[in-house]
Amino acid sequence: MKNRVVIVGTGFVGMSYAYALLNQGTLEEIILVDIDSRKAEGEAMDLNHGLAFAPRKMLIRSGTYEDCKDAKLVVITAGVNQKDGETRIDLLNRNAKIMQSVVKEIMKHGFNGIFLVATNPVDILTYIVWKSSGLPSNRVIGSGTSLDTARLRYEISQYINIDVRNIHAYILGEHGDSEFVCWSNAFVGVKPLKDVIDSMPAQIKFSDLDKIYLDVKNSAYEIIQRKRATYYGIGMALVRITKAIFNNENRILPISVFNDDDYDIDNLYIGLPAVLNENGVDHVVKLNLNDEELKSLKKSSSILKHSIDSITLE
Amino acid sequence: MKNRVVIVGTGFVGMSYAYALLNQGTLEEIILVDIDSRKAEGEAMDLNHGLAFAPRKMLIRSGTYEDCKDAKLVVITAGVNQKDGETRIDLLNRNAKIMQSVVKEIMKHGFNGIFLVATNPVDILTYIVWKSSGLPSNRVIGSGTSLDTARLRYEISQYINIDVRNIHAYILGEHGDSEFVCWSNAFVGVKPLKDVIDSMPAQIKFSDLDKIYLDVKNSAYEIIQRKRATYYGIGMALVRITKAIFNNENRILPISVFNDDDYDIDNLYIGLPAVLNENGVDHVVKLNLNDEELKSLKKSSSILKHSIDSITLE
Amino acid sequence: MKNRVVIVGTGFVGMSYAYALLNQGTLEEIILVDIDSRKAEGEAMDLNHGLAFAPRKMLIRSGTYEDCKDAKLVVITAGVNQKDGETRIDLLNRNAKIMQSVVKEIMKHGFNGIFLVATNPVDILTYIVWKSSGLPSNRVIGSGTSLDTARLRYEISQYINIDVRNIHAYILGEHGDSEFVCWSNAFVGVKPLKDVIDSMPAQIKFSDLDKIYLDVKNSAYEIIQRKRATYYGIGMALVRITKAIFNNENRILPISVFNDDDYDIDNLYIGLPAVLNENGVDHVVKLNLNDEELKSLKKSSSILKHSIDSITLE
Amino acid sequence: MKNRVVIVGTGFVGMSYAYALLNQGTLEEIILVDIDSRKAEGEAMDLNHGLAFAPRKMLIRSGTYEDCKDAKLVVITAGVNQKDGETRIDLLNRNAKIMQSVVKEIMKHGFNGIFLVATNPVDILTYIVWKSSGLPSNRVIGSGTSLDTARLRYEISQYINIDVRNIHAYILGEHGDSEFVCWSNAFVGVKPLKDVIDSMPAQIKFSDLDKIYLDVKNSAYEIIQRKRATYYGIGMALVRITKAIFNNENRILPISVFNDDDYDIDNLYIGLPAVLNENGVDHVVKLNLNDEELKSLKKSSSILKHSIDSITLE
Repeated sequence: MKNRVVIVGTGFVGMSYAYALLNQGTLEEIILVDIDSRKAEGEAMDLNHGLAFAPRKMLIRSGTYEDCKDAKLVVITAGVNQKDGETRIDLLNRNAKIMQSVVKEIMKHGFNGIFLVATNPVDILTYIVWKSSGLPSNRVIGSGTSLDTARLRYEISQYINIDVRNIHAYILGEHGDSEFVCWSNAFVGVKPLKDVIDSMPAQIKFSDLDKIYLDVKNSAYEIIQRKRATYYGIGMALVRITKAIFNNENRILPISVFNDDDYDIDNLYIGLPAVLNENGVDHVVKLNLNDEELKSLKKSSSILKHSIDSITLE
Repeated sequence: MKNRVVIVGTGFVGMSYAYALLNQGTLEEIILVDIDSRKAEGEAMDLNHGLAFAPRKMLIRSGTYEDCKDAKLVVITAGVNQKDGETRIDLLNRNAKIMQSVVKEIMKHGFNGIFLVATNPVDILTYIVWKSSGLPSNRVIGSGTSLDTARLRYEISQYINIDVRNIHAYILGEHGDSEFVCWSNAFVGVKPLKDVIDSMPAQIKFSDLDKIYLDVKNSAYEIIQRKRATYYGIGMALVRITKAIFNNENRILPISVFNDDDYDIDNLYIGLPAVLNENGVDHVVKLNLNDEELKSLKKSSSILKHSIDSITLE
Repeated sequence: MKNRVVIVGTGFVGMSYAYALLNQGTLEEIILVDIDSRKAEGEAMDLNHGLAFAPRKMLIRSGTYEDCKDAKLVVITAGVNQKDGETRIDLLNRNAKIMQSVVKEIMKHGFNGIFLVATNPVDILTYIVWKSSGLPSNRVIGSGTSLDTARLRYEISQYINIDVRNIHAYILGEHGDSEFVCWSNAFVGVKPLKDVIDSMPAQIKFSDLDKIYLDVKNSAYEIIQRKRATYYGIGMALVRITKAIFNNENRILPISVFNDDDYDIDNLYIGLPAVLNENGVDHVVKLNLNDEELKSLKKSSSILKHSIDSITLE
Repeated sequence: MKNRVVIVGTGFVGMSYAYALLNQGTLEEIILVDIDSRKAEGEAMDLNHGLAFAPRKMLIRSGTYEDCKDAKLVVITAGVNQKDGETRIDLLNRNAKIMQSVVKEIMKHGFNGIFLVATNPVDILTYIVWKSSGLPSNRVIGSGTSLDTARLRYEISQYINIDVRNIHAYILGEHGDSEFVCWSNAFVGVKPLKDVIDSMPAQIKFSDLDKIYLDVKNSAYEIIQRKRATYYGIGMALVRITKAIFNNENRILPISVFNDDDYDIDNLYIGLPAVLNENGVDHVVKLNLNDEELKSLKKSSSILKHSIDSITLE
């Protein structure tokens, strides 16, 4: 198997991911696949013209599903974009069928690597990719709440003026309206976020964090209002997940993973921290959630369950 | 003065540059300025959400021309995009006025750094920025043929199967239809490209390089046909120029520089290799061109001169 | 002030730090100072020959204390090495005088940046540097338990097979025999280490961590027995601290900091997590220690106090 | 085959190479092998303690020749160090036998990758490694004049104040006293060095370059006088060669390569520019040397031939 990623879908998410891979010199081969094959061709040309300035040599070209055969990773970003005002769940029906046909094509060519899904609604579409692929669930993941978590960490970092890499907190559940911050497991370094805020000047209050949560949850909408779509943040989140896989890191990242027993969640994909390596998900990290968080997770999973049940896989 | 770049214009070129800066961790501060200030705001949000995955801490935010005051570098990418079928020169009248008003605003706030212009037609607009700014010519440059040169090197690299970083060749002249390859000064490592090709199997001929030249010259058109615009390659070319300035590299790069005597070129900006450091252009590298190349350069400069003369600076 | 670090002492610790700075392209200028000025000269030559292969341009040369004037950071690694069997405290008397004379020389030239001390016994010598310099305590720090903490994280990472960057735990107190792990604040991601271990197979026990602690505490001795000295790990720990300062990160790192009230520690330098930025220490992070840990910290600080009191600053 | 390098010999050259690999995050696995297995163990410990601060996850451990089996690259740095005053050729007899026995052990375990030799006299020992291994000559190389060339480029760069990455010139021949600069093929960007110097102020003369050549040739001696040994520059040169191989770069680098017909050189290893990729040497780049340079190359090769002939391979 080659150190190759195949990116299915060359919209702004897929291409921001590809551009970030190129600028960070993450791996050896990037293959771009799109229904509009000329679009993929043009994107490969544009990226290749940056190669002279990149940190390492890479092979970048447009391709077909056949190129998935030797790939370690296939990242699916294809699909219809979220429109202004449209909920993530609304996108479902337009995208589910695309997933199925894409995955069938890829599996036909003997793909035996890892699927990473970034198209929304990501949790549900990841489930569909898993079902359609027939691969073990540890080798099918979604971007889940990885970006929401990055947004959260950035906002907390700005609020308390501590480096973002010292903020340890997760957004869990559906990548969508029912997602929630696991505040009971939020830390700055090794210190509970609550304690950090208590030790700060009076004008900074833990209750302000609710505003941060709302800001984060709404940030996709806010950005879409300003620039029609969001793609740079997610591009870098996908690179982080990619590194965990290609470098066999055993890294904990909040992604969309399959659950059949944790937290009484059954038979669906949902955002939870998981240990990632070259085989995909090693295991889901089970956190000690408080009652309110458990309720939120249950609510989020029942929303996802409901959506999944409304889809008929052919 | 701060290790700050202000990017004027948050279209795809400006943002691909910003995203590349973020992914490569090139400098400390990126300020985004756009007439549509909410667009700049949205872009800053999108980038900041990737910070948790970036190689270093950076300050990224939207701003105003006032932020140029302490900036080492202002990169101008604002302007109207090249349309399918439109020549680069055609863009001129739509963009010249934008440049003037932008530069006046920036200078009003006491800017004392370096201008890097990327808007097309880049040679002419760089000239206008220089005129409007009143800065010494070494502190006003344009992206020139830096991207064309990268494209050329990539194509040669592919053709003869040698690493792109060993291909030393330049495209000179106008960044536009009259640009030309300086084949008499093209090397692979330290070996003349012509000798390299002569030593290769018979099916590879030096005359094929003309096709490479045409491919490169047309590649913007080819990409635009496929994806409407080109921005990734130029984004990374701008990062390379930025590094030469911020790291005080004394690096030779093919950019749009002011000439008042070299090659009998007088009082215009045109693409030539120049030594770049923290003060901008240290000097233009004067190459030993053959007659045909000198003629091409003269032709290119007269085209530029003609365009410049047709503009009335208010 | 320049993005310059002056390294005082070109032994293996100082040079491993310099070599790591070069390979990581961390900053702009490295000045090497050594009593044996020819040694510093030779080291600068050796490093400069690697510049052609480095990620960025840097200025590297040998220098004198006068070069400290414009430096943001002076890193002191000068001193006599720890011998096989020698306790860290034993080194004290041989090194205290070196510190004083070095610091006096540096201050004479108007140094106004940050001191980072790496010579052992680091907590005590950092105290001496602070006293000798007359600088505010936030601008004098020591490498403290940064390396011990890195060693601990690596050992835990190996033991439970999770990426080292997900292990959040500190070694506190003296960088020496009385240091201790703050197990009550040890996390894997956001999950208490204790819970992680409880969830693992029976053969992995929390009590095994005591062995890890001992391994870490003894690892300097173990390495010294095998290769006479330790320098690579500390070199990279110093780079991490340097980045926090030069990039103004507000990053939490376990270093030797001055304390006059936290935990009833008074008027000494000791290893604690602190928030670091371009001004040095922003604040010490006060952790919620359990009784045993508080006792260990008190013991460690009284050992340091005892050592400090035994020194007569001229 | 794994992205693994096995380093045979954990002296300062081998370890500086390993430390540079760690700091640059070049590959996945570093295995350290030394006759003194405890030394290798201590070195692995020291490096691993820096992992928490490295750009990527790596596996670093001490090992045995058996670990060469799956390695893409084995780098041999074992051998006796050059003493003050000792010529490189003098080291030969002390090191030839070490090479033979090392290579035999490695081949016994089914090694099928690439050998990179760094022990001096490197050209002769590379020949011996090739002979002892039975591998095709393209898969056995030596560090050759890669470091000398880097030194030369740095010195020229300093002299004319142009970025070292724009200096294209090679030192050819024996890595030793008979090496010579190929001035007829020395360029700054694409401009002949001679022309660059002619265009500079009068006090800079082309004849001064002879001094640069002497400085470079003597720099190993100069450094050894100051710090007993040279290892940082060569460590980074070896990383550069390693990247060309692991990233399949087709990069031109001046290394010790086997020649059986170029320039009438027959059946020996000598420093020449060669195109390197994952299969080792793709081809030697034949330069157009002037008469003086051809004579120098012939002299250098006859010196090497003489040395090789004086060795009896068992």
